[in-house]
Amino acid sequence: MTPAQEPGALLCFDDELAVARRAAEATGLRLAVVERHRFPDGEWRLRLPPALPPRVVVWRSLHQPNEKLVELLLLAETARQLGARHLSLVAPYLAYMRQDIAFHPGEAVSQRIVGRFLAGLFDALITVDPHLHRVATLHEAVPLADAIVLSGAPLLGAWVASQRQDVLLLGPDEESLQWVSSAAQAHGWPHAVCRKLRHGDRHVEIALPELSVAGRAVVLMDDVASSGQTLIEATRLLLAAGARSVDVAVTHALFAGDALQRLQAAGVGQVWSTDCIAHPSNAVSVVGAVAEALAALYQRLDLVPGDGGQRVTSEA
Amino acid sequence: MTPAQEPGALLCFDDELAVARRAAEATGLRLAVVERHRFPDGEWRLRLPPALPPRVVVWRSLHQPNEKLVELLLLAETARQLGARHLSLVAPYLAYMRQDIAFHPGEAVSQRIVGRFLAGLFDALITVDPHLHRVATLHEAVPLADAIVLSGAPLLGAWVASQRQDVLLLGPDEESLQWVSSAAQAHGWPHAVCRKLRHGDRHVEIALPELSVAGRAVVLMDDVASSGQTLIEATRLLLAAGARSVDVAVTHALFAGDALQRLQAAGVGQVWSTDCIAHPSNAVSVVGAVAEALAALYQRLDLVPGDGGQRVTSEA
Repeated sequence: MTPAQEPGALLCFDDELAVARRAAEATGLRLAVVERHRFPDGEWRLRLPPALPPRVVVWRSLHQPNEKLVELLLLAETARQLGARHLSLVAPYLAYMRQDIAFHPGEAVSQRIVGRFLAGLFDALITVDPHLHRVATLHEAVPLADAIVLSGAPLLGAWVASQRQDVLLLGPDEESLQWVSSAAQAHGWPHAVCRKLRHGDRHVEIALPELSVAGRAVVLMDDVASSGQTLIEATRLLLAAGARSVDVAVTHALFAGDALQRLQAAGVGQVWSTDCIAHPSNAVSVVGAVAEALAALYQRLDLVPGDGGQRVTSEA
Repeated sequence: MTPAQEPGALLCFDDELAVARRAAEATGLRLAVVERHRFPDGEWRLRLPPALPPRVVVWRSLHQPNEKLVELLLLAETARQLGARHLSLVAPYLAYMRQDIAFHPGEAVSQRIVGRFLAGLFDALITVDPHLHRVATLHEAVPLADAIVLSGAPLLGAWVASQRQDVLLLGPDEESLQWVSSAAQAHGWPHAVCRKLRHGDRHVEIALPELSVAGRAVVLMDDVASSGQTLIEATRLLLAAGARSVDVAVTHALFAGDALQRLQAAGVGQVWSTDCIAHPSNAVSVVGAVAEALAALYQRLDLVPGDGGQRVTSEA
């Protein structure tokens, strides 16, 4: 069999087995769980399948990323030794994308450093709604020819449409406009974004957009919910302004600490998220979109003569 | 000033400030603490001094290593952008040195992978008693021209000599012979090593060497104490065989969990360690030896014409 015909492998860790199993079914890749042992001194011992096909996909969502970045370092180099010639990372949540400049002199620009680190380990990257601010493309942060961005917004939009009528779709800040507008236009909903006025690291003030929310089923949509503070402030203002209901739809359910409880206490009805990060709020899956992106990637690789699956896109 | 005359910088993190301050005094390097902020999503934000001299030393002991390896990735690339041209890592405890082969097919050979990772970040490495098994030199694991190994054994030997008389120096297993014999010979002590018979991952059986321990002040010396299980077994046998006292001298006080308490419960008198890993048992400091090694390293760099401190040893 040529590499193009031989089924590739999908590697995952035990804590993401459920989503990786769905991904293996959707892609036709052979699933293998990387055995992971933690020594008392904090070191990892990883064990991969003893032989790997030329095409290998690693499924690893990178919330709480530091331990996982070391896992990926150990995994990627070992996978190459065991036969992988084209190695893709599916990181539905991609870490360290926020710090794209030194806000103060001397700060590490972690986006670029982690991006180059990952680009050195993998031949392709597929992620969902990376939190990019001042860079236009993922390629600027992760210098791979195949740095592929998917979006959770269409999936969340379709879910919202199945759950609510007369939706008013709001973004909690200006940066959420890209996701809010695309989902709203697909379903013919009115939409707008709040303005965010930061007072220091913790205190956030929100200004609602100038349109009537009275009696509307408002859905707040964003790429990521972490502390939830912006969503909480927006919810309070919206309910005070007479919104019939306020629900939240986010791609990445980071939800640090008791953020979810505080959101519910502020009056949020439902919280819906994608399965980029496993969380009780998961309502829609990105697996289908990832499988399509992988199929398109492999189709492109097969079109390049004599590639054998080996880093062909980087050399194109 | 030329780079050779300008004082270099010593970078450390807040949790190692005490030992790094002593190192800065011993070396004449300017001390700077890297500011470190942990976001709720687990990401680090690092902030270095806004300008760095050509020669920079990073002090980072690598027990519980994974978070620290990511710190070093962020730190090293940022330090180069901020002016560092020759970057040394002082890692008194060096992690991931044990897995130097795949014991089972598919295992990550983490020693080589982490070694190459560190060699890609730094120009020189100074460490103390790395736990090497099947490789003869640190250079094989960390491919740097300047991969410098110091030993805690002479320091511990001198300390033991100040605390005990009629010492019998024992190693808990065959691998400890190198440290035991050098320290014993320096002080004219008899010495030997136990034999270790492993039964699975947890259970360890020890055979004492065939010499009389009755009435002797036995000191068990090793490079590292982690679970302490071997030291506990040896202590029980030694006390049963009539040893007057059993003390422990180790370079690296890893002491996972309640290992120290269990050692004391088994009848160990004193536990002495170097300050490679900060621990209540620290009795001697490696700072002087590190300062000497750094001075010798910089002297060698200065002897190479036109180096400017930039990776000269790698190119020699």
